This record gives sequence, C-alpha cells and structure tokens, in this order.
Amino acid sequence: MKDLTSAVRAYIDAARVCRIATVRPDGEPHVIPVCPVFDGDATIYVDIGPKSATGHAIANEARVAVLIDDYDENWTLLRKVLLKCRADEVTGTERDTVWERIRTKYPQYASVDWQPRQTMALRIYDCIQEGIAAPAH
Amino acid sequence: MKDLTSAVRAYIDAARVCRIATVRPDGEPHVIPVCPVFDGDATIYVDIGPKSATGHAIANEARVAVLIDDYDENWTLLRKVLLKCRADEVTGTERDTVWERIRTKYPQYASVDWQPRQTMALRIYDCIQEGIAAPAH
Repeated sequence: MKDLTSAVRAYIDAARVCRIATVRPDGEPHVIPVCPVFDGDATIYVDIGPKSATGHAIANEARVAVLIDDYDENWTLLRKVLLKCRADEVTGTERDTVWERIRTKYPQYASVDWQPRQTMALRIYDCIQEGIAAPAH
Repeated sequence: MKDLTSAVRAYIDAARVCRIATVRPDGEPHVIPVCPVFDGDATIYVDIGPKSATGHAIANEARVAVLIDDYDENWTLLRKVLLKCRADEVTGTERDTVWERIRTKYPQYASVDWQPRQTMALRIYDCIQEGIAAPAH
C-alpha cells in the first residue's frame, strides 16, 4: 500500500469513533461503532467483545471496512476516510502497548473498568478518502 | 418483524446521517455514510450512486446493515440502532413520494442539483438497539 498522507493520518488519529463493517459467516453484512486507536502508520486497534457478532464475523472473514467520517449540514464540508483492513488479534507486548494508548485516549475506560477483551489490529491495505485536505498553514 | 417502538422510530426519523454496510461480490465488507429518509414504519430510503461500490454490492447481495448511532464522550449516553434490511430499488410513484420527503428533509439537495440516481428502499426485518429509551414526559 502507498503510505497514507499526513492529512489522512492526522484525521484517523483524531477520530473518537469509527464504524467497522464485517461479513457474518452466513454472508450478511454487519456494522458497529467502536473507539479506534491509531498507531500513526498503517494499523488501527479496536477492542471488541469476543462473543460479539463482529468477533464471530472476523473469525470467518478477516477483511474489515473501517469508516471514519464527519457529517455536516454544509455538504461542502463532508469528509470521510474508508480503510480496507485485515484483522488479526493482538496479544503479549503488542497488546500491552495498545492498551496504554487506549487508556490514554479514552479515560472513560476507567469508569467502566474494562480490561482487554478481544483486541484486534486492523492492518490497513487500502484507503479511499474524500474531503481530507492537507491542513492549512 | 415486531413493530419498532415509538422511541426507536423517533430516533430513526431524526437521524441526519447513517452508515450502511454491504457485502461486495468478492465477499469483502463495504460501508458508506448516507442521508436516510424514514417512512415512519419499516422502510428507510437512501439514494446512492448506481455505479458505486454499494450499488454493485446490493445487486449481488440485497441484505444491508444500517447503523444509526450517536457518539458521546459520556459513555453512559451512547446510543445506537442497528437495522437489518433488505434492499430493493424504488421506481414510479413510490420514488416520487420518496423524493418529496428527501427534498424536504435535505434542502441541501437543491444546492448540488441532485436528481434521483439509484433510490433504494431498505426494508427493515430486524432491529437491535442500545440506549434508546422512551422519551421522558
């Protein structure tokens, strides 16, 4: 994959929520909102329920579509990034590092006392974007 | 399908944007943001590009997952509705009625001079919701 532009990387990094689409074993599409953490390069991390429909779907089909977008009533300001990814579960030290990032970005995790459930790396292999310009100087 | 509750119907009706997930012919998931119009009962209408990846996907697999959600930094306020739907294209008088609703809900269409492209009815056959309570009285 070509490197993501700095503008796209900044947009992904700032996202507080994204929507991820998966395909269930019976071929039905599924989509959920999740809180993403970006490594700054080409991987997004999300923590999902291991017995969730998304977890079940990924076990069968590793391709995941990640949408980060902002709706605005001024349609000239619509922005979106679609990331095509391949999912694999992270464990060991990679997971420890991810969870430091997750707890820093989302202090809300403290209030719900979450521990890692099924922590997935979504490795980006393609990117389609609209409306993400380089930041003004 | 059981009727949607009045709270869920009100939530769907108020949504300015939703994300719809489809499955491409090669089995890859896809997801886009679109502007939905609700008939108040069990159908959501969206207009998509006829040569878009979503249009191509639906031609092969009519099941569509529609996510309407609101992110909030206060995680006790997170809300979402996932609607499992079956898509079919609307034509004739149904399409005329839909486009009256679309133009009323989204006056922005005037500024971009859109005409109907591929207008889809997403017929809801299942609903999963979290955090959508009945309105307070």
